[in-house]
Amino acid sequence: MREIKMDATRVDKAGHKHFMAKEIAEQPVVLANTLANYLTANGEITLPDPGIDFTAIDRLTMVACGTAYYACLTAKYWFEQIARLPVEVDVASEFRYREPPIPARTLALFVSQSGETADTLAALRYCEGKADKIMSVINVPESSIARESDLALPIFAGVEVGVASTKAFTCQLTVLLMLVLKAAKARGTITDTQMADHISALRSLPALMNLGIEQGEAMQSTARKLAEARDILFLGRGVMYPLALEGALKLKEISYIHAEAYASGELKHGPIALIDKSVPVVVMAPRDTLFDKTISNMQEVMARKGKVALISNAAGIEEAGDGTWAQIKMPDCPDIVAPILYAIPAQLLAYHTAVAKGTDVDQPRNLAKSVTVE
Amino acid sequence: MREIKMDATRVDKAGHKHFMAKEIAEQPVVLANTLANYLTANGEITLPDPGIDFTAIDRLTMVACGTAYYACLTAKYWFEQIARLPVEVDVASEFRYREPPIPARTLALFVSQSGETADTLAALRYCEGKADKIMSVINVPESSIARESDLALPIFAGVEVGVASTKAFTCQLTVLLMLVLKAAKARGTITDTQMADHISALRSLPALMNLGIEQGEAMQSTARKLAEARDILFLGRGVMYPLALEGALKLKEISYIHAEAYASGELKHGPIALIDKSVPVVVMAPRDTLFDKTISNMQEVMARKGKVALISNAAGIEEAGDGTWAQIKMPDCPDIVAPILYAIPAQLLAYHTAVAKGTDVDQPRNLAKSVTVE
Repeated sequence: MREIKMDATRVDKAGHKHFMAKEIAEQPVVLANTLANYLTANGEITLPDPGIDFTAIDRLTMVACGTAYYACLTAKYWFEQIARLPVEVDVASEFRYREPPIPARTLALFVSQSGETADTLAALRYCEGKADKIMSVINVPESSIARESDLALPIFAGVEVGVASTKAFTCQLTVLLMLVLKAAKARGTITDTQMADHISALRSLPALMNLGIEQGEAMQSTARKLAEARDILFLGRGVMYPLALEGALKLKEISYIHAEAYASGELKHGPIALIDKSVPVVVMAPRDTLFDKTISNMQEVMARKGKVALISNAAGIEEAGDGTWAQIKMPDCPDIVAPILYAIPAQLLAYHTAVAKGTDVDQPRNLAKSVTVE
Repeated sequence: MREIKMDATRVDKAGHKHFMAKEIAEQPVVLANTLANYLTANGEITLPDPGIDFTAIDRLTMVACGTAYYACLTAKYWFEQIARLPVEVDVASEFRYREPPIPARTLALFVSQSGETADTLAALRYCEGKADKIMSVINVPESSIARESDLALPIFAGVEVGVASTKAFTCQLTVLLMLVLKAAKARGTITDTQMADHISALRSLPALMNLGIEQGEAMQSTARKLAEARDILFLGRGVMYPLALEGALKLKEISYIHAEAYASGELKHGPIALIDKSVPVVVMAPRDTLFDKTISNMQEVMARKGKVALISNAAGIEEAGDGTWAQIKMPDCPDIVAPILYAIPAQLLAYHTAVAKGTDVDQPRNLAKSVTVE
């Protein structure tokens, strides 16, 4: 078992210029592997023993740091909409010190690539004896966070070398989405048809991610333009809001450009004052039910001479692409998996921008891969 | 009654260069007025009829936009620590579309200066028939949000003319804190001595705010240095984290400098890559129980040649001021009211920076005072 794992994740760049490029490119393969570990041939989701009784809990508390925190934010939308479970999400460094009340029937869920993140581990220990169950989603099954959980779900991403997390993020999202579906099924908030559709959407992800990665040239040419900016805003609504946050974080981490994300609807409550022709705005907006709202916010940006890079599918680009500064056309996909697919442009925009700027992609200044201190 | 109110808030600049300066300066007076409207002579907190039975609820959902959202974030810390009530906070534009489940025994609380914020009103209407009670904290008692609430708490800030909210924010915080104390008393999570201490802290606020405003010169000289920056980070932990967010938003709104706030503990999970000598970092850290943690994060910034402006009290400056780029010394204050007092430097730094840059302080580009569209 161990040997197979080491083989699948051997630490070389496999012809890529950077580990980050390799890890972005291998997402279709590792995601398929993640799915294979949780999905049976007939489309049942199986969790490792002892499983979780989702009818015995009323509430989730999710805690993480950095990119894993954005995975939790995305999962909050899914858990609430699909499984009708209220979710609180917090960054670990805040959670551990603010004495949060943990009511009865709470499941506490911690997400960490390394499983050793110091603040997340401390938050987990705060929940011991308070939460009904402690779960974790980790990449390293032997880690402290996994060992101290009632149930640890591995993400099967393989070793991640680049400091900026990529494949761990999409594997975290995929495992979290399967957990949401499992919870929805147990709680009776999903029909068999919906379940079958969502499972089929999950199964289509590796191929969709490949199609997304094939848009690399459009991302590269947009990135060359972004590389000249000093400040960039990212916008998204709903599940695309955490993706906007992740896109901005990736760009900060490796290109040192000051990128910041906002929920599209918050733009008019202050940050729109920043908009002028020197601040590009990246808008993540697949043609979904919130598309018109996001596009209306995007048009406010353009009315103020803001330069917009629109990331959408063909229908979205056709409908709203006129007058934008750049477009990135993603493949059509079921709404449910859009946040996982749209991680690709979030990652590749940052990657190509950093390459254009000549920064150290795999070892950005000031950062460590896993943060085992406070 | 109406006439007195109009007199106290008459719409002229009263000798100040800008409405914003006037509104910052009048906070001690309006806060005293707010307190007088909720506190009896013997230190009881009185709410307007019909009041709220805090023993009949298990959970709060707070929704707002912009600065009012940061007031909610601050109140979350208070409600959870002092009244042991779990609180969910969301921006209205997200809340209204994400179909959040509203469990039984939920109180929904909406904060809006104008009481007409479109997204917040839509979020309130989503909660009608789902939440047990609907409350609001507003500045305009005749507003739509007030009218559609079971209980509306006015903040008595008087008319706010500057687009960037100042006195409404501190009055919102003050009313929210009194609500927290009322809830804690009803739920038996506070002793009489603690209650008396907190009431006494609230009563000391107007004088403390005056002392804070007297530090205007230190803020002005720091602001002159900040005005040369293009990007600025704000850091804070615990209740100081929402204040850091507010400081960054104020600066964005009126000086057009790209300021962004982080919970201090999140810095090492990505944004520390931005730090170099061209990005000043404003650290909000009174000498409280989290001080050492924040200072340790601040020292990581300084080790990477970051220029730190430390906002603390005398003990904090003495302990950690060495080698910082600027210091702002705030008066000592009880921990409970620190977020209200530290709004002063958040506001005055932004104000003086905008004045130094020559931007239009009262009518910043692209922004409207109350946002009655989506």
